[in-house]
Amino acid sequence: MEKKIIYMDNAATTKVYKEVLEEMMPYYSENYGNASGIYSIGRDARKALENARVKVSEILNCDYKEIFFTSGGSESDNWAIKGVMSEQLKNNKNHVVTSKIEHHAILHTVEKLSKNGFYVTYLTVDKNGLINTEELEKSITERTGIVSIMYANNEIGTIQNISEIGEICKKKNVIFHTDAVQAVGNTKINFNDVDLLSMSGHKIHGPKGVGILFKKKNIRIQNLIDGGAQERNLRAGTENVAGIVGLSKALEMSYSSMDSKIEYLTELRNKLIYNLLKIEKSRLNGDLKKRLANNVNMCFEGIEGESILLLLDQNGICASSGSACTSGSLDPSHVLLALGLPHEIAHGSLRLTLSEENTEQEVDYVLDILPKIVQRLRNMSPIWKN
Amino acid sequence: MEKKIIYMDNAATTKVYKEVLEEMMPYYSENYGNASGIYSIGRDARKALENARVKVSEILNCDYKEIFFTSGGSESDNWAIKGVMSEQLKNNKNHVVTSKIEHHAILHTVEKLSKNGFYVTYLTVDKNGLINTEELEKSITERTGIVSIMYANNEIGTIQNISEIGEICKKKNVIFHTDAVQAVGNTKINFNDVDLLSMSGHKIHGPKGVGILFKKKNIRIQNLIDGGAQERNLRAGTENVAGIVGLSKALEMSYSSMDSKIEYLTELRNKLIYNLLKIEKSRLNGDLKKRLANNVNMCFEGIEGESILLLLDQNGICASSGSACTSGSLDPSHVLLALGLPHEIAHGSLRLTLSEENTEQEVDYVLDILPKIVQRLRNMSPIWKN
Repeated sequence: MEKKIIYMDNAATTKVYKEVLEEMMPYYSENYGNASGIYSIGRDARKALENARVKVSEILNCDYKEIFFTSGGSESDNWAIKGVMSEQLKNNKNHVVTSKIEHHAILHTVEKLSKNGFYVTYLTVDKNGLINTEELEKSITERTGIVSIMYANNEIGTIQNISEIGEICKKKNVIFHTDAVQAVGNTKINFNDVDLLSMSGHKIHGPKGVGILFKKKNIRIQNLIDGGAQERNLRAGTENVAGIVGLSKALEMSYSSMDSKIEYLTELRNKLIYNLLKIEKSRLNGDLKKRLANNVNMCFEGIEGESILLLLDQNGICASSGSACTSGSLDPSHVLLALGLPHEIAHGSLRLTLSEENTEQEVDYVLDILPKIVQRLRNMSPIWKN
Repeated sequence: MEKKIIYMDNAATTKVYKEVLEEMMPYYSENYGNASGIYSIGRDARKALENARVKVSEILNCDYKEIFFTSGGSESDNWAIKGVMSEQLKNNKNHVVTSKIEHHAILHTVEKLSKNGFYVTYLTVDKNGLINTEELEKSITERTGIVSIMYANNEIGTIQNISEIGEICKKKNVIFHTDAVQAVGNTKINFNDVDLLSMSGHKIHGPKGVGILFKKKNIRIQNLIDGGAQERNLRAGTENVAGIVGLSKALEMSYSSMDSKIEYLTELRNKLIYNLLKIEKSRLNGDLKKRLANNVNMCFEGIEGESILLLLDQNGICASSGSACTSGSLDPSHVLLALGLPHEIAHGSLRLTLSEENTEQEVDYVLDILPKIVQRLRNMSPIWKN
């Protein structure tokens, strides 16, 4: 790998920060004890674990008892929905409200529930990916056990009006969960707006295999993973101390420079969008204003997203055609379809997602290469008529 | 931590091997791509992931499509039981057979099922911790969906007659799962005997936060974690590539020297048992012959396990009073109670669990210190009458 890589798929995963890795290392090699052990290296591991929990709660401005460590965003999403609805069934509530553009960790979870006697309402979104809060309010009934609306979309970067959604849920007295896996680190989160929130380590330059479920104290939830007494009896399994320490450090680094980082990313993002929109028959997917600072998602009429990716890769540029979880699949993006785009266009999207490690020079390089790739592919395309 | 630590709690967790850590590192810092990415560093991650899966399957002598990576032993146990029983319900099967001495990841999982309309039979064990295979055979009905019996017990080290149990399950045409978290690396596993098997990385000198569920191809299972298409659509979540690479390396190292390792551990173990039994009113818990090579579990009448641990810790010796997951709890061990030991003795056990990093010198040191500790505590004990 001598060739310089330009990595613009930070919504899929991020490089672990050197400082994060350094903080993790001792918990593999020296302080490897089981955090439940009574002896020195066990106590050291427990201290590290609880310090990480306190650090996270201070950054997020919540109580440390509201932080539960999991194996990642998907587990957090599954746990939130299944765990809360198992409890809610006792209150005769068997209805879930969500949106059509959720991550598959939510969509496939509520599908599973719907096969087991639960009812699900899928809210539509407008052409920019925003739900209609009036539709939300009307959808909530006395049987509604949870509303789950993602903070920001992983494909198109649209940020929902989370405060307004939180208000409605409070007014209607229904539990509100948000999948904030993409939002954390790329926009400011207000934890007061939500009852439960999922996040992931590897999207913010922490390690893979570790995540968080934030859960307000008054929310009752059943375990997804039953067993030992870890995580205050709610999530069994020997704690992944190194991973948890890494996640807390990554979160700290992400929050320590949030304002300037968001400003920097927004500038790079806008430069990309502004210039890519100059390409004939190109379109931006998602809302221009209510948008994650690091997200660019474009369609170029007449060509396939996958073909663009292959040619970008040949030029050392890493990008994606939407969610990493559906990459390689031939299905069009469910998110783009929900925006009202026709099938042939929903196939042709390109997602560039930035991190603060990207430079303006890299952006310029992409702006040099990408229009040529589009032109070349269109010249080869049987369906493209100039 | 200048003081030399003698670590004899390897059933709780193990130190990550240097070689394991070295293999993991590139997947944090260089090849950090998402294994679903289409570009170079994504493909590198996918290659590493699939190489790890093939390596594991070759070591375990099974098909690579039978290996599913999870976040650890507890998740694997939960997934096996809940996932299989959700499917079995379609076949009108709602009965689970397990034993009284399972790990809490099994016991609390089946308890949860029993609150949701399932029936559970808990097999008793004899004074050495072995189940009665006739009782097993009688317990299986046409409604039985799964039998889950642990390969070897985490507290007392007793190894079940897994082949015989497997035979019975085959004859009765019922699915057989085993929790082999403690067994892998400390005894030889025959994968032909079982339909599903759980294991964990951090018990074999791999990292915490990663495990495996082995599942034969013909066994139908529902997801515990729904979402993306990872792990052949059965376990969602971005793959923990570094952890998976580490686990596969640890397994390789564990198996490359299995015979000599087991011989070495058995020698150290027997020296400990033989000499500790010389202490007045001491007893060995678990079977002497059908026993994990690295497990010593003793009771010393008249004194509490926790007090021994504190004094051992002062002497730099890390041990445990049973399962790490219940450490700190005031409840007596459910395993020792199942052996028929009275409450006051079930409180007083000491578990020493070895790894190949332990030396005979360390064993000698423990054999010097421990009898003195027992004597000292008995001298202080109001209930000990000489």
